[in-house]
Amino acid sequence: MSTRIAILGAGPSGLAQLRAFDAARRKGIELPEIVCYEKQEDWGGQWNYTWRTGLDANGEPVHSSMYRYLWSNGPKECLEFADYSFEEHFGRPIPSYPPRAVLLDYIKARVEQSDVRQYIRFNHAVRWVEYNEDTEKFTVSVMNYTEDKMETDQFDYVVVATGHFSIPNVPEFEGLEHFTGRVLHAHDFKDACEFEGKNVLMIGASYSAEDIGSQCYKYGAKSVTFCYRTAPMGFDWPDGCEEKPLMTRAEGRTIHFADGSSKEIDAIVMCTGYLHHHPYLHDDLRLVSSNRLYPPNLYKGVLWVDNPKLIFLGMQDQYYTFNMFDAQAWYARDVILGEIQVPDHATRRADADAWLAKEEALADHDAEIDFQAAYIRDLLAYSDYPDFDVEGQGELFKLWLQHKQEDIMGFRNRCYASTNTGTMAPELPDTWLAIKDDSLETFMAITDPNYRPDDAAERQPEPAPHT
Amino acid sequence: MSTRIAILGAGPSGLAQLRAFDAARRKGIELPEIVCYEKQEDWGGQWNYTWRTGLDANGEPVHSSMYRYLWSNGPKECLEFADYSFEEHFGRPIPSYPPRAVLLDYIKARVEQSDVRQYIRFNHAVRWVEYNEDTEKFTVSVMNYTEDKMETDQFDYVVVATGHFSIPNVPEFEGLEHFTGRVLHAHDFKDACEFEGKNVLMIGASYSAEDIGSQCYKYGAKSVTFCYRTAPMGFDWPDGCEEKPLMTRAEGRTIHFADGSSKEIDAIVMCTGYLHHHPYLHDDLRLVSSNRLYPPNLYKGVLWVDNPKLIFLGMQDQYYTFNMFDAQAWYARDVILGEIQVPDHATRRADADAWLAKEEALADHDAEIDFQAAYIRDLLAYSDYPDFDVEGQGELFKLWLQHKQEDIMGFRNRCYASTNTGTMAPELPDTWLAIKDDSLETFMAITDPNYRPDDAAERQPEPAPHT
Repeated sequence: MSTRIAILGAGPSGLAQLRAFDAARRKGIELPEIVCYEKQEDWGGQWNYTWRTGLDANGEPVHSSMYRYLWSNGPKECLEFADYSFEEHFGRPIPSYPPRAVLLDYIKARVEQSDVRQYIRFNHAVRWVEYNEDTEKFTVSVMNYTEDKMETDQFDYVVVATGHFSIPNVPEFEGLEHFTGRVLHAHDFKDACEFEGKNVLMIGASYSAEDIGSQCYKYGAKSVTFCYRTAPMGFDWPDGCEEKPLMTRAEGRTIHFADGSSKEIDAIVMCTGYLHHHPYLHDDLRLVSSNRLYPPNLYKGVLWVDNPKLIFLGMQDQYYTFNMFDAQAWYARDVILGEIQVPDHATRRADADAWLAKEEALADHDAEIDFQAAYIRDLLAYSDYPDFDVEGQGELFKLWLQHKQEDIMGFRNRCYASTNTGTMAPELPDTWLAIKDDSLETFMAITDPNYRPDDAAERQPEPAPHT
Repeated sequence: MSTRIAILGAGPSGLAQLRAFDAARRKGIELPEIVCYEKQEDWGGQWNYTWRTGLDANGEPVHSSMYRYLWSNGPKECLEFADYSFEEHFGRPIPSYPPRAVLLDYIKARVEQSDVRQYIRFNHAVRWVEYNEDTEKFTVSVMNYTEDKMETDQFDYVVVATGHFSIPNVPEFEGLEHFTGRVLHAHDFKDACEFEGKNVLMIGASYSAEDIGSQCYKYGAKSVTFCYRTAPMGFDWPDGCEEKPLMTRAEGRTIHFADGSSKEIDAIVMCTGYLHHHPYLHDDLRLVSSNRLYPPNLYKGVLWVDNPKLIFLGMQDQYYTFNMFDAQAWYARDVILGEIQVPDHATRRADADAWLAKEEALADHDAEIDFQAAYIRDLLAYSDYPDFDVEGQGELFKLWLQHKQEDIMGFRNRCYASTNTGTMAPELPDTWLAIKDDSLETFMAITDPNYRPDDAAERQPEPAPHT
């Protein structure tokens, strides 16, 4: 019987794994049996926007944390696939910061070119995974929602590609039980227009707070307040935005902050991060980690140290994304195909712990970027994933951090050159703040060198936000 | 080794099971080993209000569907425990329609008098239940969130008391992907004040639509529109409220309805019901049912026909609630204690199917009430749960339906006599529409015969909704 692989999830990481196997197939290598379980109706994972919040049509937690009008918050040049450039996909260069629908189009197109959709069972939610020491196989139980029945199957390898930005971390604050405004986590934030004319509070000082706060400003919130636990983001915020230390309690509509100040607030958005959550894994297989650059117990950041037949993709906190998942997926593929020999337990443990120690010593963002670049560089040596300028992209990340510091509402107007094709990205036709429609159609139209604004009436864009 | 029982959930049904065992203990009967797993931090299930929506602090689906200002939507006389009256609990008669906090206080007090909290493991979420035919035992795996570790244990019986009003049923409608207002399910509805001055749409024509729509009216919504799939509720709604056939699609903020009309809407509340959802049960143990008065495959409405060691409590659609759960729990207890002999498979199947056939022939609400009364009457014959006037309460339910038809915004001002104590409930001091503060403290104060409004300043009520 041939080797059997279960891939859990068909988002960017799961699709990278499928693409990796397809690349091998194209080289004439015989593939193992592959089954990819995906609880959503379509592929794309996090990048599939849905209007749903909380639980989905099947009663499963909604996977995607995406909201309307989301644009990439990092340069696309830093997440470009090494085997499929943006220019190849779109037939021309596009600006450095595209909206969600453009990125989704790009990641879907690569796998549409491959013959991998056949492996995916959509509407299947993984319930329980067990490993049998005697047979050396995993038993995977999944709910097939299309037929409303449970299925159980055996596998030699399990690739966990379910992400870690889906299950919100939602802390408690005194008085929320009686706060009469709205409280939601960033995961359930859907449309900045809902907060037009409102006083909104972001709890948190990381990417979600920065981006959702900026969105609310862009779409007409009356005021945006950010509050931080450790340190302010320190951006040069425009009028109407301010940072405060952490909220301490709510009293009616009044929010009190640690510096003794208070403010009337209509809505609180908890930008308080996400949990690593693997409810289908027993403790002997479960990744327990905070959101960090090198989660513990993963050899090469992907193989479960105690059982390298269990593989985790994309579990790192991320500067690098799509191309890092690729580097991981190609590595995992070659482990599964037997092309890479996995060392013994002690070696795996020592290697994982060494990276962990390095991570803990990192001094600043630039060092973190270099660390993740070094990790990817290490992985690339093992597989035939196309070499790419990891370090050059690292320098772009550092530049990006500077550009955000210089102008938090304007950094998306910047352009960078692709490290793969060398092509410089064209400028946006207007500022990010001014472009309110984030649809694929509009973005492609207005960034077309032949675009004339008078064409607009002939296009069929998605309905623009109300005014 | 003694018999071991796992009870899943410490809401009204799970607590009824614990109370039933405690009643036996007081009579000198030796109890089996009992472990009750509860994913919330406290008991009360559905009746614990939380500000959280979607997923809870542990990443588990939020259990409670309660919202602020919720008052009982049926007479308390129809849900009174036969072994613990409202009058005994509060020391005096109280009005027939109390708010949530009053009911929670009542159901908690009964178990606080018992020595049953010791059995409950809070912050434990059930992950997976399997039955081993050879050992005739269940293996139950639960996540202990307090210690962040998984625990696995063996049991002779599993009592599923996890409810079926927690996992929302959320249908799709054309255009919601682009609707720029807010969309939420009744499960995530928290505070009617959020919708003050807004045009809100309720999708659905059952209890949630009726009650949440009434709440929004009470707390100042600009308009409340209800839309139905099959038939309107047909109440005599006040100005500003109207019923329409089902929405067909959204276009911007405009909602189109099946009769060709349309309306500008700010928020859509899906009052579209709940799913029976048992993700921890494999198909051979899983209850698959719509929300109905007699779910299939349950002998006496509680014992899984194919394996009567698996027990389901409170899985019925409900007129009767707390006292029906009691009748079920006392019956289940006596099965577990061996006091009731469970008949063979064919008899169980025939009995369950006969009730199912009867249910399917029911003509109207009155017949449904009589059906559920007959079901409870049948159960009561088997155990020593105190006899109570099931049929008399059924007549109250019929009266309640009439009173709702007469005045949907005023039926909660009615009073009924307890079938247990015979005491007539006192009137509310003002109309339900006028009483905006739903706290326990306020309700008990204003319903006190010695209450003088001037005392109000001396009380410490929960903060009232903003105005």
